[in-house]
Amino acid sequence: MSEYIEPIETLAEKFRRLPGVGKKSAVRMAFSVLDMSEEDARAFSEAILSAKTKVRRCSVCGNMTDEELCSVCRDSGRDRSLICVVENSRDVITFERVREYRGLYHVLGGVISPVRGVGPSDLSTDSLLKRLSNGTVREVIIATNPTVEGETTAMYISRLISPLGVKATRLAYGVPVGSDLEYADEVTLNRAIEGRREIK
Amino acid sequence: MSEYIEPIETLAEKFRRLPGVGKKSAVRMAFSVLDMSEEDARAFSEAILSAKTKVRRCSVCGNMTDEELCSVCRDSGRDRSLICVVENSRDVITFERVREYRGLYHVLGGVISPVRGVGPSDLSTDSLLKRLSNGTVREVIIATNPTVEGETTAMYISRLISPLGVKATRLAYGVPVGSDLEYADEVTLNRAIEGRREIK
Repeated sequence: MSEYIEPIETLAEKFRRLPGVGKKSAVRMAFSVLDMSEEDARAFSEAILSAKTKVRRCSVCGNMTDEELCSVCRDSGRDRSLICVVENSRDVITFERVREYRGLYHVLGGVISPVRGVGPSDLSTDSLLKRLSNGTVREVIIATNPTVEGETTAMYISRLISPLGVKATRLAYGVPVGSDLEYADEVTLNRAIEGRREIK
Repeated sequence: MSEYIEPIETLAEKFRRLPGVGKKSAVRMAFSVLDMSEEDARAFSEAILSAKTKVRRCSVCGNMTDEELCSVCRDSGRDRSLICVVENSRDVITFERVREYRGLYHVLGGVISPVRGVGPSDLSTDSLLKRLSNGTVREVIIATNPTVEGETTAMYISRLISPLGVKATRLAYGVPVGSDLEYADEVTLNRAIEGRREIK
Protein backbone atom coordinates (compact mmCIF):
# COMPACT_ATOMS: atom_id res chain seq x y z
CA MET A 1 0.00 0.00 0.00
CA SER A 2 1.36 3.42 -0.87
CA GLU A 3 1.68 6.05 1.77
CA TYR A 4 -0.70 8.57 0.20
CA ILE A 5 -4.10 8.13 -1.33
CA GLU A 6 -4.06 7.59 -5.06
CA PRO A 7 -4.92 11.09 -6.38
CA ILE A 8 -2.20 12.67 -4.24
CA GLU A 9 0.33 9.98 -5.13
CA THR A 10 -0.38 10.46 -8.84
CA LEU A 11 -0.10 14.22 -8.66
CA ALA A 12 3.12 14.10 -6.62
CA GLU A 13 4.57 11.79 -9.27
CA LYS A 14 3.81 14.41 -11.94
CA PHE A 15 5.43 17.21 -9.93
CA ARG A 16 8.40 14.94 -9.39
CA ARG A 17 9.14 15.06 -13.12
CA LEU A 18 9.62 18.81 -13.09
CA PRO A 19 13.22 20.06 -13.02
CA GLY A 20 14.71 20.39 -9.54
CA VAL A 21 11.78 18.77 -7.70
CA GLY A 22 12.58 15.97 -5.25
CA LYS A 23 10.20 13.49 -3.65
CA LYS A 24 9.44 15.56 -0.56
CA SER A 25 8.86 18.78 -2.50
CA ALA A 26 6.61 16.94 -4.93
CA VAL A 27 4.42 15.73 -2.07
CA ARG A 28 4.29 19.20 -0.54
CA MET A 29 3.27 20.60 -3.92
CA ALA A 30 0.55 17.98 -4.30
CA PHE A 31 -0.86 18.88 -0.89
CA SER A 32 -0.71 22.58 -1.73
CA VAL A 33 -3.01 21.89 -4.68
CA LEU A 34 -5.58 20.54 -2.20
CA ASP A 35 -5.36 23.82 -0.33
CA MET A 36 -6.13 25.83 -3.48
CA SER A 37 -9.66 26.90 -4.30
CA GLU A 38 -11.24 24.72 -6.95
CA GLU A 39 -11.12 27.70 -9.29
CA ASP A 40 -7.37 28.09 -8.82
CA ALA A 41 -6.76 24.38 -9.29
CA ARG A 42 -8.80 24.48 -12.48
CA ALA A 43 -6.85 27.49 -13.77
CA PHE A 44 -3.57 25.73 -12.96
CA SER A 45 -4.70 22.59 -14.74
CA GLU A 46 -5.74 24.59 -17.78
CA ALA A 47 -2.53 26.63 -17.86
CA ILE A 48 -0.53 23.44 -18.31
CA LEU A 49 -2.60 22.21 -21.19
CA SER A 50 -2.78 25.67 -22.68
CA ALA A 51 1.01 26.17 -22.61
CA LYS A 52 1.53 22.77 -24.18
CA THR A 53 -1.04 23.21 -26.93
CA LYS A 54 -0.80 26.93 -27.74
CA VAL A 55 2.96 27.34 -27.80
CA ARG A 56 4.57 26.46 -31.11
CA ARG A 57 7.64 27.35 -33.14
CA CYS A 58 7.84 30.50 -35.23
CA SER A 59 7.61 29.40 -38.87
CA VAL A 60 10.60 31.58 -39.77
CA CYS A 61 13.13 31.37 -36.94
CA GLY A 62 11.91 28.50 -34.76
CA ASN A 63 11.54 30.69 -31.66
CA MET A 64 8.62 29.97 -29.33
CA THR A 65 5.41 31.81 -30.09
CA ASP A 66 1.67 31.51 -29.74
CA GLU A 67 1.16 33.04 -33.19
CA GLU A 68 2.40 32.20 -36.69
CA LEU A 69 5.50 34.40 -36.31
CA CYS A 70 7.36 35.16 -33.08
CA SER A 71 7.43 38.67 -31.64
CA VAL A 72 10.95 39.31 -32.96
CA CYS A 73 10.14 38.26 -36.53
CA ARG A 74 6.95 40.35 -36.39
CA ASP A 75 8.84 43.45 -35.23
CA SER A 76 9.42 45.70 -38.26
CA GLY A 77 12.09 47.65 -36.36
CA ARG A 78 14.59 44.76 -36.34
CA ASP A 79 17.69 44.63 -38.53
CA ARG A 80 16.94 41.90 -41.07
CA SER A 81 20.52 41.69 -42.30
CA LEU A 82 21.71 40.11 -39.05
CA ILE A 83 20.81 36.68 -37.64
CA CYS A 84 21.90 35.38 -34.26
CA VAL A 85 21.91 31.57 -34.16
CA VAL A 86 21.06 30.17 -30.73
CA GLU A 87 20.45 26.73 -29.26
CA ASN A 88 16.97 27.31 -27.89
CA SER A 89 14.25 29.86 -27.17
CA ARG A 90 15.56 30.52 -23.70
CA ASP A 91 18.70 31.93 -25.28
CA VAL A 92 16.55 34.32 -27.30
CA ILE A 93 15.06 35.56 -24.05
CA THR A 94 18.56 36.01 -22.60
CA PHE A 95 19.64 38.11 -25.59
CA GLU A 96 16.43 40.13 -25.57
CA ARG A 97 17.00 40.94 -21.92
CA VAL A 98 20.23 42.72 -22.87
CA ARG A 99 18.29 44.98 -25.26
CA GLU A 100 21.46 45.68 -27.24
CA TYR A 101 20.90 43.26 -30.08
CA ARG A 102 18.49 44.46 -32.77
CA GLY A 103 18.82 41.69 -35.39
CA LEU A 104 16.82 38.52 -35.87
CA TYR A 105 17.34 35.02 -34.42
CA HIS A 106 17.47 31.47 -35.58
CA VAL A 107 16.72 28.78 -33.01
CA LEU A 108 18.53 25.52 -33.74
CA GLY A 109 16.55 23.42 -31.31
CA GLY A 110 19.68 21.88 -29.77
CA VAL A 111 23.34 21.21 -30.46
CA ILE A 112 25.15 18.37 -32.16
CA SER A 113 25.71 15.75 -29.49
CA PRO A 114 26.67 12.18 -30.41
CA VAL A 115 26.23 11.18 -26.76
CA ARG A 116 22.58 12.25 -26.75
CA GLY A 117 22.08 11.03 -30.30
CA VAL A 118 21.56 14.51 -31.75
CA GLY A 119 22.99 14.89 -35.25
CA PRO A 120 23.09 17.86 -37.65
CA SER A 121 19.86 16.70 -39.26
CA ASP A 122 18.03 17.16 -35.95
CA LEU A 123 18.80 20.88 -35.97
CA SER A 124 16.99 23.49 -38.02
CA THR A 125 19.92 24.16 -40.37
CA ASP A 126 17.90 23.71 -43.56
CA SER A 127 15.58 26.56 -42.65
CA LEU A 128 18.64 28.67 -41.74
CA LEU A 129 20.23 28.12 -45.14
CA LYS A 130 16.91 28.96 -46.78
CA ARG A 131 16.82 32.27 -44.90
CA LEU A 132 20.31 33.09 -46.15
CA SER A 133 19.55 32.31 -49.79
CA ASN A 134 17.93 35.60 -50.85
CA GLY A 135 20.91 37.85 -50.05
CA THR A 136 19.28 39.98 -47.33
CA VAL A 137 21.42 38.60 -44.52
CA ARG A 138 24.98 39.94 -44.27
CA GLU A 139 26.11 38.34 -41.03
CA VAL A 140 25.31 35.33 -38.88
CA ILE A 141 26.41 35.46 -35.25
CA ILE A 142 26.72 31.88 -34.03
CA ALA A 143 25.85 32.11 -30.35
CA THR A 144 25.76 28.46 -29.31
CA ASN A 145 27.04 27.87 -25.79
CA PRO A 146 30.81 27.89 -25.13
CA THR A 147 30.78 24.13 -24.50
CA VAL A 148 32.38 21.36 -26.54
CA GLU A 149 29.04 20.58 -28.16
CA GLY A 150 28.28 24.25 -28.75
CA GLU A 151 31.69 24.74 -30.39
CA THR A 152 31.26 21.69 -32.61
CA THR A 153 27.88 22.97 -33.70
CA ALA A 154 29.26 26.47 -34.34
CA MET A 155 32.04 24.97 -36.47
CA TYR A 156 29.55 22.90 -38.44
CA ILE A 157 27.27 25.85 -39.12
CA SER A 158 30.09 28.19 -40.10
CA ARG A 159 31.18 25.64 -42.71
CA LEU A 160 27.64 25.34 -44.03
CA ILE A 161 27.40 29.10 -44.35
CA SER A 162 30.79 29.96 -45.86
CA PRO A 163 29.95 28.93 -49.47
CA LEU A 164 27.07 31.44 -49.37
CA GLY A 165 29.36 34.43 -48.86
CA VAL A 166 27.64 35.39 -45.60
CA LYS A 167 29.91 36.47 -42.77
CA ALA A 168 29.84 34.04 -39.82
CA THR A 169 30.93 35.37 -36.42
CA ARG A 170 31.18 33.95 -32.92
CA LEU A 171 30.68 35.70 -29.57
CA ALA A 172 33.89 36.96 -27.95
CA TYR A 173 35.40 34.86 -25.18
CA GLY A 174 36.92 36.55 -22.18
CA VAL A 175 36.65 37.31 -18.53
CA PRO A 176 33.17 38.29 -17.40
CA VAL A 177 32.74 42.00 -16.65
CA GLY A 178 32.71 42.70 -12.93
CA SER A 179 34.21 39.32 -12.07
CA ASP A 180 37.47 38.69 -10.25
CA LEU A 181 40.41 37.42 -12.34
CA GLU A 182 41.26 35.12 -9.47
CA TYR A 183 38.18 33.05 -10.23
CA ALA A 184 38.61 32.86 -14.00
CA ASP A 185 39.46 29.38 -15.26
CA GLU A 186 42.59 28.85 -17.35
CA VAL A 187 40.84 28.28 -20.64
CA THR A 188 38.80 31.45 -20.30
CA LEU A 189 41.86 33.43 -19.31
CA ASN A 190 43.83 32.10 -22.30
CA ARG A 191 40.97 33.05 -24.59
CA ALA A 192 40.85 36.50 -23.00
CA ILE A 193 44.57 36.97 -23.69
CA GLU A 194 44.25 35.73 -27.26
CA GLY A 195 41.37 38.10 -27.87
CA ARG A 196 42.98 41.12 -26.18
CA ARG A 197 42.29 44.53 -27.66
CA GLU A 198 44.32 47.70 -27.93
CA ILE A 199 43.24 50.51 -25.64
CA LYS A 200 42.72 53.59 -27.75
CA MET B 1 5.69 43.72 -22.65
CA SER B 2 6.48 40.71 -20.53
CA GLU B 3 9.58 38.66 -21.15
CA TYR B 4 7.82 35.42 -22.04
CA ILE B 5 4.89 34.73 -24.28
CA GLU B 6 1.56 34.67 -22.51
CA PRO B 7 0.96 30.91 -22.08
CA ILE B 8 4.42 30.44 -20.55
CA GLU B 9 4.08 33.50 -18.36
CA THR B 10 0.70 32.30 -17.08
CA LEU B 11 1.94 28.80 -16.37
CA ALA B 12 5.09 30.05 -14.61
CA GLU B 13 2.86 32.21 -12.42
CA LYS B 14 0.90 29.11 -11.38
CA PHE B 15 4.05 27.16 -10.54
CA ARG B 16 5.25 30.18 -8.61
CA ARG B 17 2.41 29.68 -6.13
CA LEU B 18 3.61 26.22 -5.17
CA PRO B 19 5.58 25.97 -1.94
CA GLY B 20 9.32 26.55 -2.31
CA VAL B 21 9.19 27.64 -5.95
CA GLY B 22 10.93 30.89 -6.88
CA LYS B 23 10.63 32.91 -10.08
CA LYS B 24 13.48 31.21 -11.93
CA SER B 25 12.37 27.67 -10.99
CA ALA B 26 8.81 28.49 -12.02
CA VAL B 27 9.99 29.54 -15.48
CA ARG B 28 12.13 26.42 -15.82
CA MET B 29 9.13 24.30 -14.84
CA ALA B 30 6.93 26.05 -17.39
CA PHE B 31 9.48 25.37 -20.11
CA SER B 32 9.75 21.75 -19.04
CA VAL B 33 6.03 21.36 -19.67
CA LEU B 34 6.66 22.37 -23.28
CA ASP B 35 9.22 19.57 -23.52
CA MET B 36 6.67 16.99 -22.34
CA SER B 37 4.67 14.93 -24.80
CA GLU B 38 1.14 16.19 -25.21
CA GLU B 39 -0.06 13.01 -23.51
CA ASP B 40 2.11 13.68 -20.44
CA ALA B 41 1.03 17.30 -20.26
CA ARG B 42 -2.59 16.22 -20.43
CA ALA B 43 -2.06 13.62 -17.67
CA PHE B 44 -0.37 16.26 -15.52
CA SER B 45 -3.19 18.71 -16.10
CA GLU B 46 -5.76 16.07 -15.21
CA ALA B 47 -3.90 14.93 -12.09
CA ILE B 48 -4.21 18.43 -10.66
CA LEU B 49 -7.94 18.61 -11.21
CA SER B 50 -8.41 15.03 -10.09
CA ALA B 51 -6.54 15.55 -6.81
CA LYS B 52 -8.53 18.69 -6.13
CA THR B 53 -11.94 17.19 -6.93
CA LYS B 54 -11.56 13.59 -5.73
CA VAL B 55 -9.84 14.17 -2.41
CA ARG B 56 -12.20 14.95 0.43
CA ARG B 57 -12.34 14.66 4.21
CA CYS B 58 -13.25 11.42 5.96
CA SER B 59 -16.75 11.88 7.36
CA VAL B 60 -15.64 10.50 10.74
CA CYS B 61 -12.13 11.79 11.46
CA GLY B 62 -11.54 14.50 8.85
CA ASN B 63 -8.50 12.75 7.35
CA MET B 64 -7.98 12.95 3.59
CA THR B 65 -9.60 10.24 1.54
CA ASP B 66 -11.05 9.56 -1.87
CA GLU B 67 -13.85 7.48 -0.34
CA GLU B 68 -16.50 8.12 2.33
CA LEU B 69 -14.24 6.91 5.15
CA CYS B 70 -10.45 7.16 5.26
CA SER B 71 -8.27 4.03 5.19
CA VAL B 72 -7.67 4.20 8.96
CA CYS B 73 -11.36 4.48 9.88
CA ARG B 74 -12.14 1.64 7.44
CA ASP B 75 -9.50 -0.63 8.99
CA SER B 76 -11.26 -3.03 11.38
CA GLY B 77 -7.93 -3.89 13.05
CA ARG B 78 -7.53 -0.48 14.67
CA ASP B 79 -8.03 0.20 18.37
CA ARG B 80 -11.24 2.23 18.53
CA SER B 81 -10.72 3.24 22.15
CA LEU B 82 -7.83 5.53 21.28
CA ILE B 83 -7.91 8.74 19.23
CA CYS B 84 -4.87 10.77 18.26
CA VAL B 85 -5.76 14.41 17.56
CA VAL B 86 -3.55 16.00 14.91
CA GLU B 87 -3.47 19.31 13.07
CA ASN B 88 -3.71 17.99 9.52
CA SER B 89 -3.66 14.91 7.28
CA ARG B 90 0.09 15.14 6.79
CA ASP B 91 0.49 14.44 10.50
CA VAL B 92 -1.59 11.29 10.06
CA ILE B 93 0.84 10.15 7.41
CA THR B 94 3.77 10.89 9.72
CA PHE B 95 2.23 8.77 12.48
CA GLU B 96 1.32 5.97 10.10
CA ARG B 97 4.91 5.87 8.89
CA VAL B 98 6.00 4.94 12.41
CA ARG B 99 3.66 1.90 12.35
CA GLU B 100 3.59 1.85 16.15
CA TYR B 101 0.28 3.58 16.67
CA ARG B 102 -2.80 1.40 16.16
CA GLY B 103 -5.58 3.75 17.28
CA LEU B 104 -7.72 6.16 15.27
CA TYR B 105 -7.16 9.81 14.42
CA HIS B 106 -8.98 13.07 14.49
CA VAL B 107 -7.83 15.80 12.11
CA LEU B 108 -8.47 19.29 13.46
CA GLY B 109 -7.82 21.11 10.23
CA GLY B 110 -5.50 23.63 11.84
CA VAL B 111 -4.61 25.19 15.19
CA ILE B 112 -5.97 28.14 17.09
CA SER B 113 -4.11 31.17 15.79
CA PRO B 114 -5.38 34.68 16.47
CA VAL B 115 -2.72 36.04 14.10
CA ARG B 116 -4.08 34.05 11.19
CA GLY B 117 -7.66 34.56 12.30
CA VAL B 118 -8.24 30.90 13.20
CA GLY B 119 -10.49 30.43 16.21
CA PRO B 120 -11.72 27.27 18.00
CA SER B 121 -14.87 27.26 15.86
CA ASP B 122 -12.74 26.81 12.72
CA LEU B 123 -11.45 23.48 14.03
CA SER B 124 -13.34 20.19 13.94
CA THR B 125 -13.86 20.04 17.70
CA ASP B 126 -17.62 19.45 17.51
CA SER B 127 -17.14 16.22 15.58
CA LEU B 128 -14.43 15.18 18.05
CA LEU B 129 -16.78 15.66 21.02
CA LYS B 130 -19.47 13.72 19.16
CA ARG B 131 -17.05 10.82 18.72
CA LEU B 132 -16.32 10.82 22.44
CA SER B 133 -20.00 10.81 23.47
CA ASN B 134 -20.76 7.08 23.16
CA GLY B 135 -18.18 5.88 25.69
CA THR B 136 -16.03 3.81 23.33
CA VAL B 137 -13.02 6.12 23.50
CA ARG B 138 -10.86 5.84 26.61
CA GLU B 139 -7.99 8.14 25.71
CA VAL B 140 -7.30 11.09 23.44
CA ILE B 141 -3.65 11.79 22.59
CA ILE B 142 -3.39 15.45 21.64
CA ALA B 143 -0.57 15.53 19.10
CA THR B 144 -0.67 19.12 17.89
CA ASN B 145 2.78 20.55 17.11
CA PRO B 146 5.03 21.65 19.99
CA THR B 147 4.59 25.31 19.00
CA VAL B 148 2.85 28.08 20.91
CA GLU B 149 -0.24 27.67 18.76
CA GLY B 150 -0.14 23.90 19.03
CA GLU B 151 0.13 24.13 22.82
CA THR B 152 -2.75 26.59 23.06
CA THR B 153 -4.89 24.29 20.96
CA ALA B 154 -3.90 21.25 23.04
CA MET B 155 -4.85 23.14 26.19
CA TYR B 156 -8.19 24.15 24.73
CA ILE B 157 -9.04 20.61 23.62
CA SER B 158 -8.01 19.00 26.91
CA ARG B 159 -10.41 21.38 28.69
CA LEU B 160 -13.20 20.49 26.29
CA ILE B 161 -12.61 16.81 26.90
CA SER B 162 -12.14 16.71 30.67
CA PRO B 163 -15.88 16.93 31.59
CA LEU B 164 -16.46 13.75 29.53
CA GLY B 165 -14.23 11.62 31.71
CA VAL B 166 -11.96 10.71 28.81
CA LYS B 167 -8.22 10.72 29.50
CA ALA B 168 -6.37 13.44 27.55
CA THR B 169 -2.63 12.94 27.02
CA ARG B 170 0.12 14.88 25.23
CA LEU B 171 3.20 13.56 23.43
CA ALA B 172 6.38 13.51 25.54
CA TYR B 173 8.89 16.30 25.05
CA GLY B 174 12.58 15.55 25.05
CA VAL B 175 15.76 15.30 23.10
CA PRO B 176 15.38 13.54 19.74
CA VAL B 177 16.80 10.01 19.67
CA GLY B 178 20.12 9.85 17.87
CA SER B 179 20.64 13.61 18.05
CA ASP B 180 23.54 15.39 19.72
CA LEU B 181 22.80 17.13 23.04
CA GLU B 182 25.02 19.96 21.87
CA TYR B 183 22.39 20.94 19.32
CA ALA B 184 19.36 20.69 21.61
CA ASP B 185 17.75 24.06 22.35
CA GLU B 186 17.31 25.18 25.94
CA VAL B 187 13.55 24.75 26.07
CA THR B 188 13.72 21.19 24.75
CA LEU B 189 16.50 20.34 27.17
CA ASN B 190 14.53 21.76 30.08
CA ARG B 191 11.51 19.71 29.05
CA ALA B 192 13.70 16.62 28.75
CA ILE B 193 14.98 17.16 32.29
CA GLU B 194 11.46 17.75 33.65
CA GLY B 195 10.23 14.59 31.96
CA ARG B 196 13.20 12.42 32.96
CA ARG B 197 12.52 8.77 33.77
CA GLU B 198 14.07 6.33 36.13
CA ILE B 199 16.28 3.69 34.56
CA LYS B 200 15.04 0.31 35.70
